[in-house]
Amino acid sequence: MINHNANRKSEPTMNTAKDWANASLKNISQVILIENPLSGLLILAGIAVSSWELGLIALIAALIATATAQFLKADPELTRHGLLGFNSILTGMAMYLFMTGPNKWWIALVGAFIAVLITAAFMEFFKESTLPVLTMPFILLTWFMLMMAYRFDRFILTNDLVPQFLSHEKLDQIAIPDWPEALINGYGQIFFIEQNLSCILILAAVFVSSWRSGLFVIGANLVALATAYFFGADHVLIGKGLYGYNAILAVLAISVALPSEKRNRPVFSGLIAAILSVLITASISAWMQPYGLPALTLPFVLTTWLMLAAKRVLPEL
Amino acid sequence: MINHNANRKSEPTMNTAKDWANASLKNISQVILIENPLSGLLILAGIAVSSWELGLIALIAALIATATAQFLKADPELTRHGLLGFNSILTGMAMYLFMTGPNKWWIALVGAFIAVLITAAFMEFFKESTLPVLTMPFILLTWFMLMMAYRFDRFILTNDLVPQFLSHEKLDQIAIPDWPEALINGYGQIFFIEQNLSCILILAAVFVSSWRSGLFVIGANLVALATAYFFGADHVLIGKGLYGYNAILAVLAISVALPSEKRNRPVFSGLIAAILSVLITASISAWMQPYGLPALTLPFVLTTWLMLAAKRVLPEL
Amino acid sequence: MINHNANRKSEPTMNTAKDWANASLKNISQVILIENPLSGLLILAGIAVSSWELGLIALIAALIATATAQFLKADPELTRHGLLGFNSILTGMAMYLFMTGPNKWWIALVGAFIAVLITAAFMEFFKESTLPVLTMPFILLTWFMLMMAYRFDRFILTNDLVPQFLSHEKLDQIAIPDWPEALINGYGQIFFIEQNLSCILILAAVFVSSWRSGLFVIGANLVALATAYFFGADHVLIGKGLYGYNAILAVLAISVALPSEKRNRPVFSGLIAAILSVLITASISAWMQPYGLPALTLPFVLTTWLMLAAKRVLPEL
Repeated sequence: MINHNANRKSEPTMNTAKDWANASLKNISQVILIENPLSGLLILAGIAVSSWELGLIALIAALIATATAQFLKADPELTRHGLLGFNSILTGMAMYLFMTGPNKWWIALVGAFIAVLITAAFMEFFKESTLPVLTMPFILLTWFMLMMAYRFDRFILTNDLVPQFLSHEKLDQIAIPDWPEALINGYGQIFFIEQNLSCILILAAVFVSSWRSGLFVIGANLVALATAYFFGADHVLIGKGLYGYNAILAVLAISVALPSEKRNRPVFSGLIAAILSVLITASISAWMQPYGLPALTLPFVLTTWLMLAAKRVLPEL
Repeated sequence: MINHNANRKSEPTMNTAKDWANASLKNISQVILIENPLSGLLILAGIAVSSWELGLIALIAALIATATAQFLKADPELTRHGLLGFNSILTGMAMYLFMTGPNKWWIALVGAFIAVLITAAFMEFFKESTLPVLTMPFILLTWFMLMMAYRFDRFILTNDLVPQFLSHEKLDQIAIPDWPEALINGYGQIFFIEQNLSCILILAAVFVSSWRSGLFVIGANLVALATAYFFGADHVLIGKGLYGYNAILAVLAISVALPSEKRNRPVFSGLIAAILSVLITASISAWMQPYGLPALTLPFVLTTWLMLAAKRVLPEL
Repeated sequence: MINHNANRKSEPTMNTAKDWANASLKNISQVILIENPLSGLLILAGIAVSSWELGLIALIAALIATATAQFLKADPELTRHGLLGFNSILTGMAMYLFMTGPNKWWIALVGAFIAVLITAAFMEFFKESTLPVLTMPFILLTWFMLMMAYRFDRFILTNDLVPQFLSHEKLDQIAIPDWPEALINGYGQIFFIEQNLSCILILAAVFVSSWRSGLFVIGANLVALATAYFFGADHVLIGKGLYGYNAILAVLAISVALPSEKRNRPVFSGLIAAILSVLITASISAWMQPYGLPALTLPFVLTTWLMLAAKRVLPEL
């Protein structure tokens, strides 16, 4: 009498509505490198609080990502962990926010679909590497789609995205930074949001996954604000949280979230990562000025790749 | 009595004039991912029909590529398949067309020589990758050489290549696209040509290699034209075939030409590739505007790399 | 009676002041791909002769690199060979020279520290590649830090770095190039210096390591000057040695310094490398014009990578 199924592990299929809901919520939480449906739900609530249309876009983008991965027969393990979909959330939201006119709805959803293809391609590109793809597919796709507006009549950019010749603009150094705002805006800016309640819900999504992560991101934001202030960054931008969100993501990646054989000095490496992310934020923002494009999460991606790779040669980093 | 030669396969040497002619014509046909001397001859005729000087440049570039590979002792297999020379054809033609003045002849031929070195280097860079080099060496070399005109007195650009600050230009949406022209210009634009007979000869070069490929490229061009029109691309550019040639190349690569262990849905993946190539064409064209550089075949290369890599994670793509 | 130490090789530790001095001087000499403390000392003297502050920056940057590598527990072999520190020398000097105001001192030293992290990261990125990292970390870090000046009040660029829209400037073709200056300035420009005695000391540093290297760099410089003159480069820039220093470095790398299983034609490949480096110098300089950034040693890095990779497919190169 042999039980043929004795050693068979449960198939990681995606059959039930619950599987789909879980995968789609993880698509949302993986934006902040967390795999936790409750975190995803809190983030979704945070987005919807700032704008119900934006929340709807995030939700549909999450579902499109799950459906695309299933339809094109991706490994269900990837889908279940939300690893193919987090770039779709950000791309959909970015298209909706940085474009205007009657077509931005479907452009956002087409963007969410293409993001799955680009995420898949980057996974393949990075297969031999020990580095994670992170949000690079979102960054490149969003920049590419925004640039299409200069060639396609149906794509209309908002007035925020104006190419400007690179020159020494006057940085606001007189107004005192709005510190109370600065202290929470960084969390919201991960999802392009400055609304207070949204920011708090997104911070709560981190704490729900782990208290340790929550404390690390608060530290990361504080270090980033202090660094930006010390170097003389524009005070209005500091208040908007624009120097904080990349530090938050980088420290989540370096000190807590990413698997690492040796994470012997998480506070030290988190401190270096937070400072570097501020420097890189300033630089990327200037590089993209002639194109009128936002830095998005590229400072986070570059900081994280740099720290992960350097640590293999400098083990005490 | 032992025949020492019994198991020796014929050496792939390049001794006869016929070997050189075959290799050089394949250098030309490999531009459209086809290894067929007759296709090469039809393309060469197509180029010469539009301008005999341009045909001569293409022919000499093909011979320079073969000679360089032989002189520097490349594996004769690479030379025989035309794999080291197709970037030389395009680079030579691009230099001749985008430059003016008395030096453009020899600059074109120097470009054809350097293109072999860069193609060899990219083959080495991509050795571990599963992706093909495609026309990336031509694109980078042509852009680099055109930029030299801002620093070298002997390099003079034509008036078509003017750096322009990125802004929302008026796209022509009033004139009806010249559809009859649009239907054939895409084939010629692969070689920078809009002449009708040239376009037909180049399309014939595809059909000569395979009827199936011919039908696929006609479909690719139609999808690209429809996509560009739907997104509201400039109607004049649509008529010139500038939104079609990258789709033609990408679908040739994805659906027909490149070896692929799993090409289970060539029409579906060709459709996605053609649409993506139009999006990427618009974007690359805008990115290069501050440098006054043309998109060349970069949209084809990016689309093909993206599709090939994504398919390994999304098998039904 | 067994001598336990009989087969034990000396531990590559960094315990003595002599170890530190050696490693730090090699950090300096490795900028020109030479591992020789005496060469390092001659270069340091050459730098100090042009400006004692600059010499001090170079010395402190060398020590910071050694200290950072030790503190973060890098493999002492890397530190002893000066492989983790040469980017720190160049970054520190570039920050000091391209920035102004009261903060340039500490910005230079922070740059020297970060350069170690980026060098380590690039070593990891290139681990699987057969290509060396060269000065790529210095180039990217310097460009990134200079761009921060557009966002940080404490970073102030000198007036030499002005972004300019790309257009056909008037190249100086009337003045006869200052050939005597041109013949030696290339050596100094590796370290941003035009002072005669400095240039001679740096050339001496090459000869000290090997007569053969010295003759090769003199040839490289001559070929580069002739190439730049033939293509019609700006005569003032030729006189300043700005078309020579990348050729010097590239020929050092290709013909002499880098380990190579097959260096069968060092003069031929050095000649090609010197010519290519001039072409790439012109191009990179134009590409960076909208950002107001100098080409630094990127032409050297690209030329060297191109030649090393191409040689594997074209063995007689």
